[in-house]
Amino acid sequence: MGKTIAQKIFDSHRVDNPSGDINVIKLDAVFCHEITTPIAINDLKSRGKYRVFDKNKIKAVIDHVTPSKDSKTAEQAKIMREWARDLDLKDFFDVGQNGVCHALFPEKGYVRPGYTIIMGDSHTCTHGAFGAFAAGVGTTDLEVGILKGVCAFKSPETLKVELTGTRAKGVYAKDIILHVISQLGVNGATDHVIEFDGSVIADLSMEERMTLCNMAIEAGGTCGICPPDETTVDYLWPFIKDGYSSKDEALKDYSQWMSDSDAEYSKVLKLDISKLEPVTTFGFKPDQVKNVTDMKKAPVDQVYIGSCTNGRIEDLRAAAAVLKGRKLNSSVRGILAPATPKVYREAVKEGIIDIFMDAGFCVTNPTCGACLGMSNGVLAEGEVCASTTNRNFNGRMGKGGMVHLMSPASAAAAGIAGYITDPRAYLD
Amino acid sequence: MGKTIAQKIFDSHRVDNPSGDINVIKLDAVFCHEITTPIAINDLKSRGKYRVFDKNKIKAVIDHVTPSKDSKTAEQAKIMREWARDLDLKDFFDVGQNGVCHALFPEKGYVRPGYTIIMGDSHTCTHGAFGAFAAGVGTTDLEVGILKGVCAFKSPETLKVELTGTRAKGVYAKDIILHVISQLGVNGATDHVIEFDGSVIADLSMEERMTLCNMAIEAGGTCGICPPDETTVDYLWPFIKDGYSSKDEALKDYSQWMSDSDAEYSKVLKLDISKLEPVTTFGFKPDQVKNVTDMKKAPVDQVYIGSCTNGRIEDLRAAAAVLKGRKLNSSVRGILAPATPKVYREAVKEGIIDIFMDAGFCVTNPTCGACLGMSNGVLAEGEVCASTTNRNFNGRMGKGGMVHLMSPASAAAAGIAGYITDPRAYLD
Repeated sequence: MGKTIAQKIFDSHRVDNPSGDINVIKLDAVFCHEITTPIAINDLKSRGKYRVFDKNKIKAVIDHVTPSKDSKTAEQAKIMREWARDLDLKDFFDVGQNGVCHALFPEKGYVRPGYTIIMGDSHTCTHGAFGAFAAGVGTTDLEVGILKGVCAFKSPETLKVELTGTRAKGVYAKDIILHVISQLGVNGATDHVIEFDGSVIADLSMEERMTLCNMAIEAGGTCGICPPDETTVDYLWPFIKDGYSSKDEALKDYSQWMSDSDAEYSKVLKLDISKLEPVTTFGFKPDQVKNVTDMKKAPVDQVYIGSCTNGRIEDLRAAAAVLKGRKLNSSVRGILAPATPKVYREAVKEGIIDIFMDAGFCVTNPTCGACLGMSNGVLAEGEVCASTTNRNFNGRMGKGGMVHLMSPASAAAAGIAGYITDPRAYLD
Repeated sequence: MGKTIAQKIFDSHRVDNPSGDINVIKLDAVFCHEITTPIAINDLKSRGKYRVFDKNKIKAVIDHVTPSKDSKTAEQAKIMREWARDLDLKDFFDVGQNGVCHALFPEKGYVRPGYTIIMGDSHTCTHGAFGAFAAGVGTTDLEVGILKGVCAFKSPETLKVELTGTRAKGVYAKDIILHVISQLGVNGATDHVIEFDGSVIADLSMEERMTLCNMAIEAGGTCGICPPDETTVDYLWPFIKDGYSSKDEALKDYSQWMSDSDAEYSKVLKLDISKLEPVTTFGFKPDQVKNVTDMKKAPVDQVYIGSCTNGRIEDLRAAAAVLKGRKLNSSVRGILAPATPKVYREAVKEGIIDIFMDAGFCVTNPTCGACLGMSNGVLAEGEVCASTTNRNFNGRMGKGGMVHLMSPASAAAAGIAGYITDPRAYLD
């Protein structure tokens, strides 16, 4: 019987197998941010275990509330800062160098095919885009990971999502994943790895694959995962070129992290996306998805473009294509949060920041707190946001606020129209 | 007996004089921001007085916490937004169009010589830079102003600060005003208007005069005021050119707002600034001022460049001159908050944003909450900030934090060195 990517990664990283279903796996990296890590740090400290398993394998960033908005978040940042300094962590990103973890760490080359990664953040599944196993964990697992470099997981069952067909204009990775979630349901992939495959995936950029894998958790998935291919090698080349004589060699090496043709999947979902249109969520669950054209011009008060789902340069380009030469409707406020300093600077260079500001957007520093109502874009009671983020739970972006998840192009279109509408009307 | 500028303004705006010392004056503008105005709005609403004296004379902005950081600030913003919409206020600046009130409103041409302005903000004195009387007020006065367009003030006594001499390299308006405050003491100008005069003032740009007047309140002054001159006319020309046949005519008109040569001052402080060096505050009061070179290389954790005092384009240029080609010390995080979208965009255009980001700064959207520990740069216990803001009170930028006030150039220099130091070492 063949194996899935996830099974191969587990087999190669297993250090213990205390019961049939439980695997203790070695971690290639532990990612940390300032909301969940300080609790673990303080607890480890109080137990006399103020140390890390490998100072080169901890990657830490302040990204949710930055710069600090109050004494509490200032203290969280300070704990991270002192921890990084005290324990000589090689890769800590403080104010100015920091960006949204799930955009920054891939950009830095910290994710590789076959890697195992944990983080105290539910959207850690993003990094599966590289053919890695990456999962969000709670404080206890995080502490063990920081201290010992291992984590216990159930044997991974894999749900395969096979995507075929041709994407229509105005349809982006975000539309695809929202459609997938609507088909799976919010619990459809619980305790499963979602492996994305098919001709559509082969054509996606790494940025788009990250958008896809990012939302695996919204269907309950432990991790989203894409098979590594030439696109993966191209993206990683600047970081791996000293280790391989050629891209072909790297690709050959990475092919060990491909599912076997006779791998066993718990479930397979086949979707032809040819008829998919731009979509949006309409309720408080990410599987409540409709075509934007079926939203009866639902008005929005705020447009938010950013986050670990859609704050990368391609996302900004897609929104800018809609916004160029246009203005936000006077009833709408627009917020752009480029995901990393690199994205921000590239956007300045390409004139994208100008396009956003000409349209009337506020451009914040790289940060992601708005997504969960923590900073830089919290909604008031009764307000509605067209957002490129990943969760539309009741009150997610602020108590009493409503969030409609959609692609950057659709969010930009909603900003111009003042209501949810078809972005294709604004695309040449 | 001649009159001072302030007396002339009061004489021309007095609508009642209920007792010898109290003057009810007509207001040319009421400025509003989202921290103090919602209280007034809600109170007026509860009394059935949900209206304004003149929808063209209210200028409103969301600037302290923007985009909103939590439900409370989202609600404050919403109250402002709905108020502006309900009462058809002509000039309301929401997310994307908004900037620090005391930088934005002058930039929009809302301040003119001879004007009377109130705002629920202590640094309203900034606008005196244009030869106006502008004062911070409490909620009751703000409500009356919004409703009736008048405010009661004691007859203005004027303290004249006459500045002569030649500025040394590395000495900026911020150094001058800190020096002035150190000479006056924090209560030295209580209940007085501070009129700045002398050859030094004549040479200052409007931006520099705003920096000076901005901190009049730190010596207790009700308002800082500069006599209007050619510099004032040049700054305002785009806004006034339809009202005058020439700049000379405008200047002649504005000369009515000059103190008479025989005007009576309560006190006159004469300072020759030729020997003034770059300075900084060292304690928790703005009159505790030392030369930066006397600070024994006091380490800093954060550098903040922005605020109503020093977030204008000239301030950014001054800091950029120090930062260009250099990096922040690894122990320091840097935050730049351009004061307005216009300042931000000009800084992008001039490559200043690049210089700051090359140096390792975080560039936030225009906002000013960090100054008073409300957003985007709050200090943790024990942290020290070299800041271009205006108040160093205990805990001002965050409980347990220490603030050293200084010029943008000195703050930039502290960022590079990692401690308070002489910016002249970094200036060509």
